[in-house]
Formats: sequence, C-alpha cells, structure tokens
Amino acid sequence: MTTRLLIIGGSDAGISAGLRARELDSSCEVTIVLADRFPNYSICGLPFYLSGEVPDWHWLAHRTAEDIAREGIHLLLDTTARAIDPANHLVAILDETGKPRQLPYDRLVIATGAVPVRPPIPGIDLPGVFLLRSMQDSFAVHAYLDTHAPRSAVIVGGGYIGVEMADALTRRGLAVTLVEHGAWVLKTVDESLGGRVGAELRHHGVEVATGITVERIAQAGPRLHVMGTEGFGATADLVLVAVSVRPQTELAEAAGIATGERQAIRVTRAMKTNVPDIYAAGDCVETWHRLLGAPTYLPLGTTAHKQGRVAGENAVGGHREFAGTLGTQVVKVFEAVVARTGLRENEAKEAGFDPLTVEARAWDHKVYYPGAHETHIRLTGDRQTGRLLGAQMVGRYQSEVAKRIDIFATALFHGMHVDELNDLDLSYTPPLSSPWDPVQMSAQAWVKQRHQAE
Amino acid sequence: MTTRLLIIGGSDAGISAGLRARELDSSCEVTIVLADRFPNYSICGLPFYLSGEVPDWHWLAHRTAEDIAREGIHLLLDTTARAIDPANHLVAILDETGKPRQLPYDRLVIATGAVPVRPPIPGIDLPGVFLLRSMQDSFAVHAYLDTHAPRSAVIVGGGYIGVEMADALTRRGLAVTLVEHGAWVLKTVDESLGGRVGAELRHHGVEVATGITVERIAQAGPRLHVMGTEGFGATADLVLVAVSVRPQTELAEAAGIATGERQAIRVTRAMKTNVPDIYAAGDCVETWHRLLGAPTYLPLGTTAHKQGRVAGENAVGGHREFAGTLGTQVVKVFEAVVARTGLRENEAKEAGFDPLTVEARAWDHKVYYPGAHETHIRLTGDRQTGRLLGAQMVGRYQSEVAKRIDIFATALFHGMHVDELNDLDLSYTPPLSSPWDPVQMSAQAWVKQRHQAE
Repeated sequence: MTTRLLIIGGSDAGISAGLRARELDSSCEVTIVLADRFPNYSICGLPFYLSGEVPDWHWLAHRTAEDIAREGIHLLLDTTARAIDPANHLVAILDETGKPRQLPYDRLVIATGAVPVRPPIPGIDLPGVFLLRSMQDSFAVHAYLDTHAPRSAVIVGGGYIGVEMADALTRRGLAVTLVEHGAWVLKTVDESLGGRVGAELRHHGVEVATGITVERIAQAGPRLHVMGTEGFGATADLVLVAVSVRPQTELAEAAGIATGERQAIRVTRAMKTNVPDIYAAGDCVETWHRLLGAPTYLPLGTTAHKQGRVAGENAVGGHREFAGTLGTQVVKVFEAVVARTGLRENEAKEAGFDPLTVEARAWDHKVYYPGAHETHIRLTGDRQTGRLLGAQMVGRYQSEVAKRIDIFATALFHGMHVDELNDLDLSYTPPLSSPWDPVQMSAQAWVKQRHQAE
Repeated sequence: MTTRLLIIGGSDAGISAGLRARELDSSCEVTIVLADRFPNYSICGLPFYLSGEVPDWHWLAHRTAEDIAREGIHLLLDTTARAIDPANHLVAILDETGKPRQLPYDRLVIATGAVPVRPPIPGIDLPGVFLLRSMQDSFAVHAYLDTHAPRSAVIVGGGYIGVEMADALTRRGLAVTLVEHGAWVLKTVDESLGGRVGAELRHHGVEVATGITVERIAQAGPRLHVMGTEGFGATADLVLVAVSVRPQTELAEAAGIATGERQAIRVTRAMKTNVPDIYAAGDCVETWHRLLGAPTYLPLGTTAHKQGRVAGENAVGGHREFAGTLGTQVVKVFEAVVARTGLRENEAKEAGFDPLTVEARAWDHKVYYPGAHETHIRLTGDRQTGRLLGAQMVGRYQSEVAKRIDIFATALFHGMHVDELNDLDLSYTPPLSSPWDPVQMSAQAWVKQRHQAE
C-alpha cells in the first residue's frame, strides 16, 4: 500500500522529512505544502546575502525546486495550510490561486518553523524598521538597502542574527549601532567570551551598547530615532529588530495538538505528536536535550534537519529516535568565531549538577609556525563526577574553532569525563595543532583546578 | 618516602612522564638523562625550520630547559645512558664531560625514541646525503643549505617527512624530485587521496616519481646522481633519505627487556615493561591499537605524549592505562591537508572485519559563502555490523580538515556505528560547515551504498 505523506513547511525540517521518506520507501507519495516560493532555502545564509558576500539570493537554496522534484517530491508552492482535520486525515489549504482545497494524508509532518518575536516597542511598524526571518523579510531589507541607500543602522538584539547583521551591514558600509538588553552581546556564551565578541565588533567600527532596553522608535525627519533605558538614543536610516523567535504552532494547536516548552509542539523522540499519524519537526517543536534529559526549545537548522529526517523515516514505518540536542552552535563575527556546546555553568547548576568552569588559553597551532592565533576555551564539568558538561570557545576564523567544539560535542554525546579527553587520539601537525590539542589543554587545566580546589 | 624517578630520553615521552610525575607527586625526584642538548624539542617542526618558515631553531622547543627546571625536574644534558642494571636499580651513564657514573632509581622510564632507518643504498654515506630525525641532523642539513646553496634536491621516500621536506625545500627555492618506492606518495592513505597529494606536489613544481626503488647514489662531479629501478636517474646537489624509522631499543634489550612488534619494547597498557620498576613510552615502544585490540608500531608525537603521561603517572603510584592509538595523523603539503584515523580497507580486512569503503565529496562550508573548497572523504565501515572503522580526508588548509578527522577519531574511540554519526550535534554556520557536516554527508553516502549493495 502506498503511503501518502503530507508535509506542511518546506524549510529544513520539512524537506529533510520528505527526502528521507523517499530514500527509504520509493513508493511513498510525498507532498510538501509551503506558504512561499522558496523551498529548502538556507535562512542562516540571509546575513551573507544582505552583506553582499552572496550576490544572488538564488544561491542560498540548499536544493532547487527542480532538485526536490527529481527526488519524486510534489511541491505545492505559495500554498497555505488553513486547518488540520485529524479525524478524517485531511488538511485544508488555499492553493496558489487562492482556491480552497482538501489534501488527504496517511501521515502528516508539521514543519511550520518559527517566527520572529515582535516586541511591543512603539514605532516598530514604522517604515525602515525590519524584522528578519524569511526570504521575504530579507527581500524587503535588500530592496530598502538598494533604494534608500541607508548610511546607518541600529540593530536591536545582540544574539546570533544581531551580531551577524552588524557584521553584514558594516561590510556594506553602514555605520552600525548594536543595542543589547543583556550585559554583554551573545548571551549564549559567558561574559568573558561575549566580551571578546563585543571587542571584535567595536574593532570593526560597530557601536555596541549593552544593558539597554529599547523603549521607543520614532520618526526623525527622514530618519529613525531609537530611544532606550539609561538615556540611550541613536538616530539611523534603518532599524533591524532581532530579539528572539517563537514556534509557529497556531495550526497545530487548532487541531488539538499539544504544546509544551515555550509553547512549542510537544513531540516524542520519534517526533510524534499526541495526535495519531501526525509528526512534527524543526523550529516549531520542543527539542529533547541529551544532557538535561528533558525537552527544551532550541531552534537550530542542524536540529531541524535531524528531526525532519527522523520524522520522515518514522512516517514510512521506521523506528528511529532523535538522539537529542547539545545546543551546539557557532557564529562568525568579522574575523572571530564563537562556538559552544552543552551546558554553561548556570544551566548546569539549574539542572542539578555541581559545575566547575575553567577558562584556558591555547594557540590554535604551534606558535612557532606562522599564523598562530590564541583560542579561549571555557570548559564546564561536574565537580563531583568529573563528567564533561559543556564547552565554549572564541578564536580566529580558519583556526578550526568550530570543529574543535565538535570534538567536545562528540565527547558530550558519549558522556565522557573531562579527564578522558586526554585519552582521545587527535590529529597533530605543527601548522594545525599541538601534540595536546587545545581541547585537551583545556581539559588538563580543568582537572588541575578541580584537584587544587579539593 | 621520596620516589627517585629516572627517565632516559628528553623528547616528548620522557618530558611528559617527568612533568606528570611532578604534577601528581611534588615530592618525587625526577632526573632526565638526554644524549643531546635539546630537551622537549618539536622534531615534527624540523621541516618548517629547514623551509625557513621558522627562522630560529630555538623556537622549536615545546618548553625551554629553564621551563623544565622550573617544574622541579633535573636535566642531565649531553649525557649518554650506557647500561641499565635492573637488579641494583642503577643506570650507568657517561656525563657531559665523558666521565662514567651510576645513577640510582626507584622507577625508570625508558623513552629513547626512534632512529631513521639507513637503507643499504650504495653511496648513502656520501657528503650531501642526509637522514633527518634529530636536531643535529637538521643542523647538518641547515648548514649544508647555507654553505653549499644547493639548487636541487632528491628526496628518497614519500612518507610524511618526505612530502613535508619536498614542500620545505621547494619553498627555499630548490628544484625537488621526490622518489617513492610505492605506487603513490603518502601510502598511509588510499591511492585516490595519495594521488591528490601527488597532484598538489606537482602543482608546486615537485617532480614526483613513484614505483621506483632507489638503487645507488653516486658522486657526479660536485653533484650527486641518484639511480633507481625503471631506469630512474636524477642529478641533484642534495639528497635526503627519509624512508622509515625503527625503535631505539639496544639499551633496553641489553638489560633483558622484552621487545615485540617491529622490535619495539613490549609494554602493558600501564606502560610497564617485563622488568619490575621499568616503564617505557614513546617511539621506542609498541603501541596498543584501540581498534585492533593488539599492539602495533606507530611512532607519533601525540602518542608519545600520552604514553609518557601514563608512564609518569604510574611511576608515582598511579593506575592509569593508555587508551590506545587510532593512528590519527595529519600532514600539510603546500595548500593541501591530508588526515586519517582508524583503519583503511586493507588493514580492516587483515584484522578480520568485512570492510566497505566509500569516497564522498563535500564542500567544507556552504558553497554560496566565499572561499569554499571541496573535501574528499573516504570512510571505511564494517558491512556486517555497520561499525565505523576509519576515515581518510584530503582538503584545503584552513578548511578544518584536521579537526573533522578528530570528530571521526572521537567517534571511533567510542565504537560508533557509521549511521550514528548522523545523530551527532555538530556546529554549523554557513562560513564553516553545512547543516549536515561533511563528516555526516560521508556517513550518509556510506549508509546508502551499503543498503544498495544488500
């Protein structure tokens, strides 16, 4: 019997689900409904399109619509899912002409993603103020950059998108002010590392204002004036708001699908919702955290791909479980790279561990070989058991920061103890590492400090 | 009671043993005997000194003699160990003035390293022919480069040192011919990847001759003529022979210490020899292979550091075991980086596995972001069990090849299956990877091919 697999959402999770289902069961009929014309686009690539580093937005497609069709997947573009009828296994849609239709399914995957949070700031709807999430959002910003040639920008929010856009707009020649509510930019890493990111931004001319809550945006002649706490005020031609995202779950909730953490769709590790034959994956679902042993909300492209793949496999009769996130993340900011995996001290403490965090410095490769750069590693482990809990790192672009974090991530996946990192047989040649890799040097620093504290 | 720890050999293993012993037991009296004046030098760095990239050989020290002394270690430079007397716990030495003395020990660590194999090629003793292993060797080559200003070189042996020296001497402006006995250079990786290394060498002007056995070196006026099988002949101002190394074990054998694999000193995983109170570590010992579950001979700096650390810990009463090598290695050749870990197809077959090897290509990061380079990955797994057995990779310098091999190495350490690599939460941002890292793309290619073959 042919399985009719219907997928709502054509970004990372949806496409991954469809591809995996077709790979495992070539008789499966896969239809993907998406609200725009941009299936499988790399939304993580939008800042590089806006910076000009990626000259053509078409390049941002992980796969083209033709590639996807070639895999035997039926794509319904510009099609909006309006309602799910679980009892009758139907989804009501408006097709690309605006005509209502019903699509039947045997299995359904909800992959509706996330939407940016629109903070209740007066003036946020003024022309020249933008949120950034979808392809359309970025077209709007791009068009504004082209037609208005803004010379300055205020970015509200110093998270991943905020710092990437500060880099991007600076590259385009704008004078950028970055305003962050917290005490440092990139609150996903600790203050000492976030401080290095702030320094990198300032080094490239970005004004960084931390500890400021933006309270109002007002028109100031042809420009925009952004006002905040602590007497903050800045005038610019463009304002970008990138504070947070939330899961897009209205459709699911209306169909009786339960939500959990941060109002994201509740799923099992097999990516099943509470409603039979309905799976969900990606930025709209809560995500199993491998170290916490509990669901969390951590919308990331890597996770969306994995969850989509699991959902697609199970939708055609598989028995795969999502292995869990570790919150592994990396971002490039000018010439710096910032990465993390696992838990930070405060997160570990909340989860009931007894964390110790030690910061170590190490050259990315033997300092005698040209081009060595210092890497700063903060390693968190459990004082009682010695177990590795997390790592954060700041270093230079092209000095293998990202894949060093992945060594930690692979170690965390297996529940390694900090001291065991020294047993790993890691590669070494003077232009690329040291006989003890920086990963291991940080482990040795941690072990030493733990013993001294005893 | 104070432990008197005596260490013979002041390179990676010996120094690591001493430092670890002092770290754990500050009452321990550590004496290191070394035959030259260069404790803790990075012999892996010699090619970069000879290339001119490292202008001063002093920079090659991992630590200076003063650093080591500051850790409370007594260094006896220019001191030769002549005999070990296990019954009386004494080592006979010639001190730096040539005077014989006896040094007592409670625990002894033998870390005498390896020496280059001197192949029985007629003419190998001619002036202008060099082997490269020790600091003195490299001083001799360096002096010859300075005084004779050779314009051409023949390098015999296309292993790690051979390809690094081909790079180094080319950088110095010499015309280099590299002669390799096997069918391709860098026999530590498979032919398709070794072929890429050969292409990189040729691209930078190196003449690469494979499948040639060098039979004779003869004086040809002021120059040297190298002759080999297949009618090979090349004339050059300098000849460098780098075919292989062997463990330096004469001292140990004379004291009744057993040897094993490739005549290297036989040790337990606690780095104990068969003689009470005598440990051994580094390039002079056989090395436990984590995947083979058996000893092998794989002299590497990373392993020497680990084994030395284990020996030092156990010599002061610890109970640590060497976790085993995976043969993880990396080398930079001009702009290419070549790395491997674990077993190749032929090695896996010999060890009783049912290997399948699949080669995959992947961009090091999203191709839309500037500077993407292709990475070639050969992944070997067991067809029956799906277990990961090894990986080999060639890619571009600064595209995180080395630390990607380390993700594989960490996975191998834990006995992961190939398909499980897809469960790893690895970092992603478009300038540094893809939502599925190349490591995972290669795993997916392997899984697909295994299923197709079923």
